[in-house]
Amino acid sequence: MPYINIRITREGVTAEQKQALIEGATELLSRVLNKNPATTFVIIDEVDTDNWGIAGENVTTLRKRAAEKKSAS
Amino acid sequence: MPYINIRITREGVTAEQKQALIEGATELLSRVLNKNPATTFVIIDEVDTDNWGIAGENVTTLRKRAAEKKSAS
Amino acid sequence: MPYINIRITREGVTAEQKQALIEGATELLSRVLNKNPATTFVIIDEVDTDNWGIAGENVTTLRKRAAEKKSAS
Amino acid sequence: MPYINIRITREGVTAEQKQALIEGATELLSRVLNKNPATTFVIIDEVDTDNWGIAGENVTTLRKRAAEKKSAS
Amino acid sequence: MPYINIRITREGVTAEQKQALIEGATELLSRVLNKNPATTFVIIDEVDTDNWGIAGENVTTLRKRAAEKKSAS
Amino acid sequence: MPYINIRITREGVTAEQKQALIEGATELLSRVLNKNPATTFVIIDEVDTDNWGIAGENVTTLRKRAAEKKSAS
Repeated sequence: MPYINIRITREGVTAEQKQALIEGATELLSRVLNKNPATTFVIIDEVDTDNWGIAGENVTTLRKRAAEKKSAS
Repeated sequence: MPYINIRITREGVTAEQKQALIEGATELLSRVLNKNPATTFVIIDEVDTDNWGIAGENVTTLRKRAAEKKSAS
Repeated sequence: MPYINIRITREGVTAEQKQALIEGATELLSRVLNKNPATTFVIIDEVDTDNWGIAGENVTTLRKRAAEKKSAS
Repeated sequence: MPYINIRITREGVTAEQKQALIEGATELLSRVLNKNPATTFVIIDEVDTDNWGIAGENVTTLRKRAAEKKSAS
Repeated sequence: MPYINIRITREGVTAEQKQALIEGATELLSRVLNKNPATTFVIIDEVDTDNWGIAGENVTTLRKRAAEKKSAS
Repeated sequence: MPYINIRITREGVTAEQKQALIEGATELLSRVLNKNPATTFVIIDEVDTDNWGIAGENVTTLRKRAAEKKSAS
C-alpha cells in the first residue's frame, strides 16, 4: 500500500502526462517491491514557480534568465 | 503539538465539512494522546482528481466510469 | 481515498494508542465525507523531541523545563 | 541536498516575501550544516484559511473574530 | 527539479531495492516530463507497520491475519 | 502558525545544530512574514543515506565515491 507524492513545478503539465506519471509510479512499486496497484496512491502536487526555490532563487527567476540567455544567443 | 495533514480529492468539500474535519482530528488527538488542542494543527490539502491516482488510474477517470456504469444500469 | 498523516513527538506512544488514532481518523473521514475506509490510509510519524521545535525551542528542552518546574513546586 | 517545505496560510504573501523565505532557508542550511545551496530545495505551500485549523478552529474564523475584537475596541 | 517521496511499510526492503526505486522514479520524471535527473530528489520513508493504517487497521494486524489464514489453509 | 519541515540526510547532525535550525527557521518566518513564534512548528526529518536519491543514485554511493576520489588524489 505505497504512497507516492510527486512534487513538480506548475508549468503546463497535461492530464496525459500526469496519467503517465501515475501509471509509471504504480508500475515501479509493483515491479520492484511487488506492491499491489489496487492500494497504491500517487499524488501529484503542482507548485507555482514563485513558490519553488533552488540554489536560493525561485524558479520564476531561473526560467526568465534561461529565456533571456537563449534569446541573446 | 501534533500536526495532522488530511489529503483528499477536490470534489466540492464545503467549509462546514472542513471545519468538522478540523474539530474531529483535534478532538481525536486530545482524547487518545491527551494532546493540547491549542497547539494542534490540522491542514487539509484538496488535490485535483487529475492529480490523484489509485490502482494506476487518476480519479477523474474512475469517477467518469462509475457515473457511466450508474447511468447504464 | 483519503491520506491522513499524523505527526507527533516520539514519547512512548503505545501500539494500542496508534491503533486508536488509525480507527478514529478513518471513522472521521467516513462520517464527515463518506469516504470509503477500505482506501483510507493513516500514517503516523513519530518524531524525536530533539527534531521538533515550537516557539524556537526543541521539545526536549521544553519537557525538561516543565519537569524542573514541577519538581520545584 | 536539503529539502525544506514551508507551509503557511494563503493571505497575500508577495513574490518578494517568498523569495526572502527561499533565500533565508537556503542560507540557514548552508550556515548551520554546510549544505550546498545548489542542491537545496525550498517549497512554499500556501494553504487556504478554511483548510488550516488550530485549536480546533479554522483560520478564517480566527481572523474574523480578531477583526471583530479590534473594531469593537 | 522534481521531488518524489515514496512512503512504504518497513518490511525488509533492501538497499538494492531502494536503489531501484530511486533509479526508476528519476527515469520516470525524465521520460515523461523531461526533468533533469541532476536535480531530481527521491526520498524513501519506511514506516513501521504499527504506524500505517488502512481500512481502519494497522498493517501489523493485517499481516498477522494474512499469515494465520495461510497457515490454516 | 507556520509549519516548516526540514528534510536532511542522517549524517551525524548534533542536537545543537538541530536547535540552530529550529531557531533560524522560526526567526525567518517571524522576520519575513511577522509570524508568531509561539505557534511556529519546525520538524526535522533525518533520512538514511540509502533512502535519499539524487541524480538517480543514493547518497551512500555518492559519499563513498567522493571519499574514494579524495583518498586517490
